Amino acid sequence: MGKYKVGIIGDGYTAADLLRLMAGHDELEAAFIFSVDNVGKRIDEVYPHLAHFCSITCMATDLEMIKKECQAVFLALPHGLSVPLVTELHKAGVKCVDLGADFRLKDPEVYEEYYEKRHENRELLGEAVYGIPELNREEIKKASIIANPGCFPTGSIIPLSPLLKAGIIKTENIIIDAKTGVSGAGRGLKTGSLFCEVNEGVKAYGVGSHRHFPEIKQELEKAAGSRVDMVFTPHLIPMSRGILSTIYVELKEGVKEEDMRQVLREEYRDEFFVRILPEGTMPHTKWVAGSNFIDIGIYADEKRRKGIIVSAIDNLVKGASGQALQNLNLVLGIDEGKGLRNLVPLFP
Amino acid sequence: MGKYKVGIIGDGYTAADLLRLMAGHDELEAAFIFSVDNVGKRIDEVYPHLAHFCSITCMATDLEMIKKECQAVFLALPHGLSVPLVTELHKAGVKCVDLGADFRLKDPEVYEEYYEKRHENRELLGEAVYGIPELNREEIKKASIIANPGCFPTGSIIPLSPLLKAGIIKTENIIIDAKTGVSGAGRGLKTGSLFCEVNEGVKAYGVGSHRHFPEIKQELEKAAGSRVDMVFTPHLIPMSRGILSTIYVELKEGVKEEDMRQVLREEYRDEFFVRILPEGTMPHTKWVAGSNFIDIGIYADEKRRKGIIVSAIDNLVKGASGQALQNLNLVLGIDEGKGLRNLVPLFP
Amino acid sequence: MGKYKVGIIGDGYTAADLLRLMAGHDELEAAFIFSVDNVGKRIDEVYPHLAHFCSITCMATDLEMIKKECQAVFLALPHGLSVPLVTELHKAGVKCVDLGADFRLKDPEVYEEYYEKRHENRELLGEAVYGIPELNREEIKKASIIANPGCFPTGSIIPLSPLLKAGIIKTENIIIDAKTGVSGAGRGLKTGSLFCEVNEGVKAYGVGSHRHFPEIKQELEKAAGSRVDMVFTPHLIPMSRGILSTIYVELKEGVKEEDMRQVLREEYRDEFFVRILPEGTMPHTKWVAGSNFIDIGIYADEKRRKGIIVSAIDNLVKGASGQALQNLNLVLGIDEGKGLRNLVPLFP
Amino acid sequence: MGKYKVGIIGDGYTAADLLRLMAGHDELEAAFIFSVDNVGKRIDEVYPHLAHFCSITCMATDLEMIKKECQAVFLALPHGLSVPLVTELHKAGVKCVDLGADFRLKDPEVYEEYYEKRHENRELLGEAVYGIPELNREEIKKASIIANPGCFPTGSIIPLSPLLKAGIIKTENIIIDAKTGVSGAGRGLKTGSLFCEVNEGVKAYGVGSHRHFPEIKQELEKAAGSRVDMVFTPHLIPMSRGILSTIYVELKEGVKEEDMRQVLREEYRDEFFVRILPEGTMPHTKWVAGSNFIDIGIYADEKRRKGIIVSAIDNLVKGASGQALQNLNLVLGIDEGKGLRNLVPLFP
Repeated sequence: MGKYKVGIIGDGYTAADLLRLMAGHDELEAAFIFSVDNVGKRIDEVYPHLAHFCSITCMATDLEMIKKECQAVFLALPHGLSVPLVTELHKAGVKCVDLGADFRLKDPEVYEEYYEKRHENRELLGEAVYGIPELNREEIKKASIIANPGCFPTGSIIPLSPLLKAGIIKTENIIIDAKTGVSGAGRGLKTGSLFCEVNEGVKAYGVGSHRHFPEIKQELEKAAGSRVDMVFTPHLIPMSRGILSTIYVELKEGVKEEDMRQVLREEYRDEFFVRILPEGTMPHTKWVAGSNFIDIGIYADEKRRKGIIVSAIDNLVKGASGQALQNLNLVLGIDEGKGLRNLVPLFP
Repeated sequence: MGKYKVGIIGDGYTAADLLRLMAGHDELEAAFIFSVDNVGKRIDEVYPHLAHFCSITCMATDLEMIKKECQAVFLALPHGLSVPLVTELHKAGVKCVDLGADFRLKDPEVYEEYYEKRHENRELLGEAVYGIPELNREEIKKASIIANPGCFPTGSIIPLSPLLKAGIIKTENIIIDAKTGVSGAGRGLKTGSLFCEVNEGVKAYGVGSHRHFPEIKQELEKAAGSRVDMVFTPHLIPMSRGILSTIYVELKEGVKEEDMRQVLREEYRDEFFVRILPEGTMPHTKWVAGSNFIDIGIYADEKRRKGIIVSAIDNLVKGASGQALQNLNLVLGIDEGKGLRNLVPLFP
Repeated sequence: MGKYKVGIIGDGYTAADLLRLMAGHDELEAAFIFSVDNVGKRIDEVYPHLAHFCSITCMATDLEMIKKECQAVFLALPHGLSVPLVTELHKAGVKCVDLGADFRLKDPEVYEEYYEKRHENRELLGEAVYGIPELNREEIKKASIIANPGCFPTGSIIPLSPLLKAGIIKTENIIIDAKTGVSGAGRGLKTGSLFCEVNEGVKAYGVGSHRHFPEIKQELEKAAGSRVDMVFTPHLIPMSRGILSTIYVELKEGVKEEDMRQVLREEYRDEFFVRILPEGTMPHTKWVAGSNFIDIGIYADEKRRKGIIVSAIDNLVKGASGQALQNLNLVLGIDEGKGLRNLVPLFP
Repeated sequence: MGKYKVGIIGDGYTAADLLRLMAGHDELEAAFIFSVDNVGKRIDEVYPHLAHFCSITCMATDLEMIKKECQAVFLALPHGLSVPLVTELHKAGVKCVDLGADFRLKDPEVYEEYYEKRHENRELLGEAVYGIPELNREEIKKASIIANPGCFPTGSIIPLSPLLKAGIIKTENIIIDAKTGVSGAGRGLKTGSLFCEVNEGVKAYGVGSHRHFPEIKQELEKAAGSRVDMVFTPHLIPMSRGILSTIYVELKEGVKEEDMRQVLREEYRDEFFVRILPEGTMPHTKWVAGSNFIDIGIYADEKRRKGIIVSAIDNLVKGASGQALQNLNLVLGIDEGKGLRNLVPLFP
């Protein structure tokens, strides 16, 4: 049986992690890596940790070659760049998993407000499926364009959607306070990503204006079937990988901590990558490092009707490349956990 | 003019930081350091960074010596241990600044609930003044027992009290999501404080049960003049010093971001150690490291009536030893900023 | 085909990493975990990152059960504790891989000097094989007691042995300056392993007296066939995993940088886990994190006859559990890279 | 008494640290900050930690203004840029302390080899004094151009010079293995300075070619009065501030550990900023963080005639801005420790 040939457009941290994961996948082959800055360099020169696993030479993006050789493609690009590529590749029948933001927001006006850019192919938005397999598996299987979710949205939507669908928490006053490692900012050169600016410190950023806000809102409203009133604040902390999302909700009358846990256990009973923690245990991002898990802990102050849900993911895996691979597996009809189920978290 | 002689009971990180600060203070002299584990060792063997500044030999606690020689004492001990010492020293006329929790909660029942220990001198609770100079300066000047605030309470009460007093935010649904460095856990040996357990990770802890909750509540209710409904969740992040508190509030009708900023600017107009940041700037714990500052940033989504206030302190300085020294300066009638105003934050 | 049943004695970081690696191994089964502190706890409560991979309950050590059920055992214990256990298990025919120090030094006098303890079974020392598969593969295959090397020795012996054997570097004046992450100190409670004592700092330790010194010396002298004069200084740096060893040597007359590289390339031509870096590239511990690789970079100042060899390993994998598994695979006649070849380093 | 007005040319980390130190100095005033990227911005916007201490607005470099208003200037610029500025300012009688490399190497050929740039004012090299006050105090007092030493050279020359002068160590085979924090690379945007590239890892860099090599060599040869044969290898470790230099030397016959310690104690008996550690204690960079100290520990294997000397400095203070201020104090005839003696290291 031949392997599916897959192209990767982009050479940042998420591209590197796709290669890490695909090294353990026996039905996919990373056929091409397309780059702007590293054309002509071997990928294991750019990322020496990949030596002995992948030695492809980076090339300038060449859509004809993809169309001729690849069954699928991962796009790991800054927002705005995917639309023309996906437009053309989709037409040619290449399955597209876009790790960027271009196909996530169903409403192009919202896209244009938050990304300050016109969306160049509004019709295609309807084709794209928002790719959280644990919530949209059947749609994903039939899709040929996957909008791979943002890292913060993944950590918030997976725990909140079932609770909203079940109607046991209120749709007002949801507060999401997220803490992320620095790899979420990518490998680009910014003062704020320098070691000395991040180490031994913590700050909030994008307060009131982060681009993942409308994406979270869209998906929560889909789950709730109604308007959701929420606040989302990300924080940058001195670690490379990981996102912890602390989510504050108001419980409907009579709802107990165990009810919340039960709803999530039910929903995710067969999901290998979702680990609902037992009573009294709250997640730690170290427990998911390098893996595709999302760990979820739950607490309620029943008397005061407050719930606290805490989730942990590796932002580059379940928050990006891992989920992208999970999506592509589904799209191609491969075992969904291939290349992912074998990833044991790295601790300490 | 002679110096005041001061004893320090305890030899953990807050004791070490008291010595750092007192090295720059020309009216106080660290006369004794009382220890359990390091009796007979010079303090600059225990903390070699202090070499050339302090070379006192640690002794077993000796109240008679304190009473005979010292005008004041800092107690930097685990909770429960200060009560008998303060009882006796207070009687002898020694000014006491307790960096522990024993005199912070006015209601002994609450103390007993949260600290799982009977309070052994309930009458003395009435004597103790809660020591945030920016809010209680006049009371502190007249006090002889200071309950030095907890690190998390300091970061929350200073920004929230004036807003509650001014009545521009609601008393319900206040959510405090705090992120602390590891020094807050002290120098004691706990698995959770090991480098490998903390590095490259983040977790929530004490969810729904942290001992600083009732302390924050008490002081916010004092400011509001009414019941306050709040949630407080601390998180441990991989840094040594610093606390960032992200505080979510609901605004009363018509309140604007600038109103919040104005209230805080007014309240703290003459306070050197409070820096209200300009519009669009949120604090970073690195900007206060090693210093006695509290930096406060403010954001409001006026349409949706949500406010976000973020504060940053160094947990060992404004959150512990710095504030303790500020309090003692007031108690002894010394210039309040002595030993503190000279501390420029260490960046990067 | 049945799996080999393996017991693990100890529940520290190396035990946890053995379980991580064995999760990807289809011919071995972790049958028991023996503990002192966590008896009765499930291992995924002790190490929640292992949830969904291993849920064995920790037991008190029970040699009878091992003898009855297990074909092999990993001992991950402080020095001095393995001797009686190995004595008994060996007699019963159980293959033993000792991750501790008890069987590494061939000369019991040296053991007793450095470990300040009498060796309780000197005869058994002769049975034990020092387990670096890349150097001793054939002996290991036939052994039933493996002395798994220390982490520092692994990083030094692999690059130096072939150069000494080839006689192109001098046996005098070898200087090994090593930098280790904190996990090398284990999970035990020591002030020096606390986050606040390690973060934002670096120090040398065990200067002139570290226990890995005689172990390195023994193996280098074996390779050289003569006395070796060396200095070894370890340093603790603020990271969890990884050892970088910077090794300074003097070149014999006429030896060029490329000669050194060539000797190592030859020696390790078929070794998957040894990556000799190209000219101009020096290793980074991040490039091997979580994997069983040792990366080696080489530089020579030919005019001044100085060579610098730098090696990087993950101290818990190639420096401990990974090499232990590699050894056990050999002892049991399994494919040597099972459970290891799939480990792609985690970057960033 | 008026203050001396001082200009600062540059706005990187060393400039920021100069401002931190000058905030505690009552005879100097930072009159101007000259910038390229931040012209028109207040320095406390660029570095918010400086708020309440310095609020000067950054300007484009204006030599006329310096000549008219300033008695002295600090140049904190990339190499090659200082020469024309110093040429002109020196002519106008402004005292110059150059934190860059342009005046450190006495031999312009060596400068040109290592910095790949012609030196544009060779005559001025003769005027410049290499500024380590503990070694060259009298010359510095009379100088009007100070070549402020590099960070690595400071950490190596201070411990080695007296030992070489005393003739108790050999001039061959000196090996300096240094470990630095990331701030040494400055605030410029380089992939290698990104948090994710540095965190949880360590690497050697500039092996065999670092620009501080000829500077160290020059000063050691001056002390020895003869050729010195040395190797210098820097390593980048995950911390912001600090350099630990581990120095391996060969002892002359009969030399004991205590002899080395005695020579250093003698030499630096009256030096506040040099702390010779007692037997058995090795330095930690955390013990000097934020301060102008250099801590030195000594070990000897007398039988094998090997010595190990370990020094710790804060690379931005004793390794840059602190030493620069110490030099300027001397040049202007001010108390040498002004603005420096008050800096207690920040631990933890």
